[in-house]
Amino acid sequence: MKHSTSTHTIIIIGGVAGGASAAARARRHSESTHIILLERGPDVSFANCGLPYHIGGEITDRAELNVQTPQSLRDLLNLDVRTLTEAISIDRANKTVVVRDLSSGEENTLAYDQLILSPGARPLVPAMPGIDDPRIMTLRNLQDTDRIKAAAASAHQVLVIGGGFIGLEMAEQLNHLGKSVTLIERNPQVLPLLDKPMVRPLEKALETQGVHLIFSDGIAGFEASPSSLHAILQSGKKLAADLVILSIGVTPENTLAKNAGLELGARGHIVTNQWQQTNDPDIYAVGDACETYDPIFQTPVAIALAGPANRQGRTAADHIFMGERAIPYPGSIGTAIVRVFHTTAGITGWSEKRLQQASLPYQTVTVNAASHASYYPGAETVTLKLLWNPENGRILGAQAVGKDGVDKRLDVIATAIRGNLTINDLAHLELAYAPPFGSAKDVINIAGFAACNIRDGFLLPISGIAEAGAQIVDVRPAESAARQPIPGAINIPLTQLRKRLDELDRSLPVYTICQMGKTSYFAARILSNHGFIAHSILGGAHHQL
Amino acid sequence: MKHSTSTHTIIIIGGVAGGASAAARARRHSESTHIILLERGPDVSFANCGLPYHIGGEITDRAELNVQTPQSLRDLLNLDVRTLTEAISIDRANKTVVVRDLSSGEENTLAYDQLILSPGARPLVPAMPGIDDPRIMTLRNLQDTDRIKAAAASAHQVLVIGGGFIGLEMAEQLNHLGKSVTLIERNPQVLPLLDKPMVRPLEKALETQGVHLIFSDGIAGFEASPSSLHAILQSGKKLAADLVILSIGVTPENTLAKNAGLELGARGHIVTNQWQQTNDPDIYAVGDACETYDPIFQTPVAIALAGPANRQGRTAADHIFMGERAIPYPGSIGTAIVRVFHTTAGITGWSEKRLQQASLPYQTVTVNAASHASYYPGAETVTLKLLWNPENGRILGAQAVGKDGVDKRLDVIATAIRGNLTINDLAHLELAYAPPFGSAKDVINIAGFAACNIRDGFLLPISGIAEAGAQIVDVRPAESAARQPIPGAINIPLTQLRKRLDELDRSLPVYTICQMGKTSYFAARILSNHGFIAHSILGGAHHQL
Repeated sequence: MKHSTSTHTIIIIGGVAGGASAAARARRHSESTHIILLERGPDVSFANCGLPYHIGGEITDRAELNVQTPQSLRDLLNLDVRTLTEAISIDRANKTVVVRDLSSGEENTLAYDQLILSPGARPLVPAMPGIDDPRIMTLRNLQDTDRIKAAAASAHQVLVIGGGFIGLEMAEQLNHLGKSVTLIERNPQVLPLLDKPMVRPLEKALETQGVHLIFSDGIAGFEASPSSLHAILQSGKKLAADLVILSIGVTPENTLAKNAGLELGARGHIVTNQWQQTNDPDIYAVGDACETYDPIFQTPVAIALAGPANRQGRTAADHIFMGERAIPYPGSIGTAIVRVFHTTAGITGWSEKRLQQASLPYQTVTVNAASHASYYPGAETVTLKLLWNPENGRILGAQAVGKDGVDKRLDVIATAIRGNLTINDLAHLELAYAPPFGSAKDVINIAGFAACNIRDGFLLPISGIAEAGAQIVDVRPAESAARQPIPGAINIPLTQLRKRLDELDRSLPVYTICQMGKTSYFAARILSNHGFIAHSILGGAHHQL
Repeated sequence: MKHSTSTHTIIIIGGVAGGASAAARARRHSESTHIILLERGPDVSFANCGLPYHIGGEITDRAELNVQTPQSLRDLLNLDVRTLTEAISIDRANKTVVVRDLSSGEENTLAYDQLILSPGARPLVPAMPGIDDPRIMTLRNLQDTDRIKAAAASAHQVLVIGGGFIGLEMAEQLNHLGKSVTLIERNPQVLPLLDKPMVRPLEKALETQGVHLIFSDGIAGFEASPSSLHAILQSGKKLAADLVILSIGVTPENTLAKNAGLELGARGHIVTNQWQQTNDPDIYAVGDACETYDPIFQTPVAIALAGPANRQGRTAADHIFMGERAIPYPGSIGTAIVRVFHTTAGITGWSEKRLQQASLPYQTVTVNAASHASYYPGAETVTLKLLWNPENGRILGAQAVGKDGVDKRLDVIATAIRGNLTINDLAHLELAYAPPFGSAKDVINIAGFAACNIRDGFLLPISGIAEAGAQIVDVRPAESAARQPIPGAINIPLTQLRKRLDELDRSLPVYTICQMGKTSYFAARILSNHGFIAHSILGGAHHQL
């Protein structure tokens, strides 16, 4: 039996990102709807992505993080905001929620017409010895921020456990504060979502700034006394710390949903349709706690990022008021970016690793090019890795790393993925060019050219020096080759290659390498047109060494 | 009768941008082809787009502009480079070109299998009194650059005639050098390709830096004596100058093509197909001299920009060697950008002006948002104008202006246009977000939201204060409204609006305005949901005043 409230009532559980967006959008649809925004914590609509930067002092004013306050939401949106209020249970048959006031302990039953779940995801805290020590902290909200900031003030030695996005931002910011930072990651690289060669520049940046990196080792437990704290790694290694930041991942807040019998996905996320509806059509779920789909391969996916959360909140509100006239949520491709000191890396769509794990067919190329016209001051190298479907050329994903212009290239590829563009389209994208901003042939075009060259058989790529056979030819000028020798390579500068072909063994393939992966391709074309089998080593010494 | 050379021979006329690209790409296809690169000037493959920045001193080393030299092209690509060599005529029947060595005056006949025309476009120099004075200069090549740089050294008063891309760059760079610069534009705005409200920030930047602007006035002639030079404007105004930069546009170098009977377009450009072939299948044309097509409305178009030129050169070379396996050139949408001091503006696709002139249906919205998370230091406002087809929501064009992130948004929209994306797609583009790079709701998303709101009837837009009726409500906080009053508006801050509805006349429409065009929309929604007809003034005071 459907319960109907006298005033149209929407209850939203969770007042950040997706929940706040849903509330705001719902109010634009209706002035008369009673919109109740429940938030367990004291804050609503705060800038979660800004928290590390307040700890590190880049965002000096804490108030900047309170994008909205409960009062501003009341004033602007006439919302019934209830902070420090926890939803305890959902009665789907009667369409009610039991809520508890965390100050008074008082419980209340609230009726809804539609319910929007935006509970978020909480940091993973694995059960292990010593894990409850108060010097081990996670970062989710402003109270965590205050706690870490206070602890960091007197800490000298900080361990950051987990080298994902938050771990990297925390390592950078704590290093800014002058702390001795060790970053521990159980995978053999930072940012395990990305392919290993693409994050090497981030790792170099961390090392250069004095962040100590430990890879392929996980946390086993902690040994604590009032005066000391040690992390014990799975290898047996023991590390002293004054402060530990645990950033090994998040898990969806699904207790309410599970207890209400809502359908959960394989990893515990709340399953939703294209309108963010759960299996109960009057209950929506948005943000980090929900499962959406990947539009590239139409697989279920959960993406804990702010952009998707906000737009899912909007979608839910639109569907409540507009029904199927609302724009369906188009799924999430997982575009993400992180800056570590002066180096930035990011991803959109699928990585090579993920494609391999899913046994999906792909082809890939990695290219380097200047962030803007190389003859104009300030150009930096952007390294771009592109992945595409070899059957139809459709872009499956990309990763980029460099000191300038990484965000722009990721956004272009994210848009290309949305438009089902192919490597042909990338080759001919018409991007904005003036010397301070781009190049006549942008790195995106160059990646498209290289991809088409691979498809058309003009470029026989080799992903790394390790994959190359015996006959490696370094085609850089003699000085560059001498300064940074390629193991096992002979040096024949490109300009001499045509005259020195008889120094090479025609019975063996040739593997060419240069600094950026461009002249090695030119060299391979010369060799190929002279009857050699010639492979170019992608990304050159810049990417390989 | 087809003439066949004993060695496969490609002749390329014009050694910059498109011509150089075609030569390089042709060499990758074949080591044995004889590739003759003819260039009338002394330089090949120089950085035309960098010339203003060498004059202004941002690019200090002139050698940086020589991306390649005749010798480096010989060494790298084994090209037969002939500089200071002019093509005089084409004999299509015999497939030969008569060339003249400009040093010796000697003429020669060269046979080709394929001919690629990349002659470029020359600056327009209208016939008018005094135009031949040597102090009146145009900028096309390194020799022009040297001449202008030398003249600027002793000049005090400089006139720049024409406020297009080159005119703006020259005005900025000459101002950098401390010159007193006056910019004259016969249209009522700079960058006539863009819509007037979008270039106002550029004009403000020029004025702030002391560049004197004269609009809606053209050049009528010059009065010269050895000691003085005056420009006479069509209005009769007379301006003294030590140096005049004429940058009123370019005209295609089509004499050779015309004399050879190749088909020319309405404005004299060489007509090409999707492989850059002219009506003679053995003659290709690329770059500024050729006509391609606009993929948005399938109309002929000529775009004098470096990116298209380079990629057209590649297309021609590919078609010679690959035939129809080559990627067809997909047309040009005209993505362009310019930086003027700290402000940048650009366009991709069609402007409102152009759509109006062509009587094509469109809808438009202009939004403002921060270049990255507003709570993170350094965010700047990006103003984005979006144009779409009201029948199917397809993006037709966009313009952006601001101090940061303009290039990125243009590139995203250029990619969206290539992918036939709609306003729905922009609303849900999943762009890279971390506080230094973007926002959870990027300005692109916000433009998509606003566009969908217009389509769905939630946002009744008014493009300017002038179009608003009697009842304008300024919903900014009282202090902002007092500091920068909106003519004819009453001030009701958004937070008070719900309580002060009876101050408004329900029989008249309400026009809301705020600083950025966001809270005015919120206010219009409140009013609309309370039974008013409420319009939001797009772009707010930031864009309107």
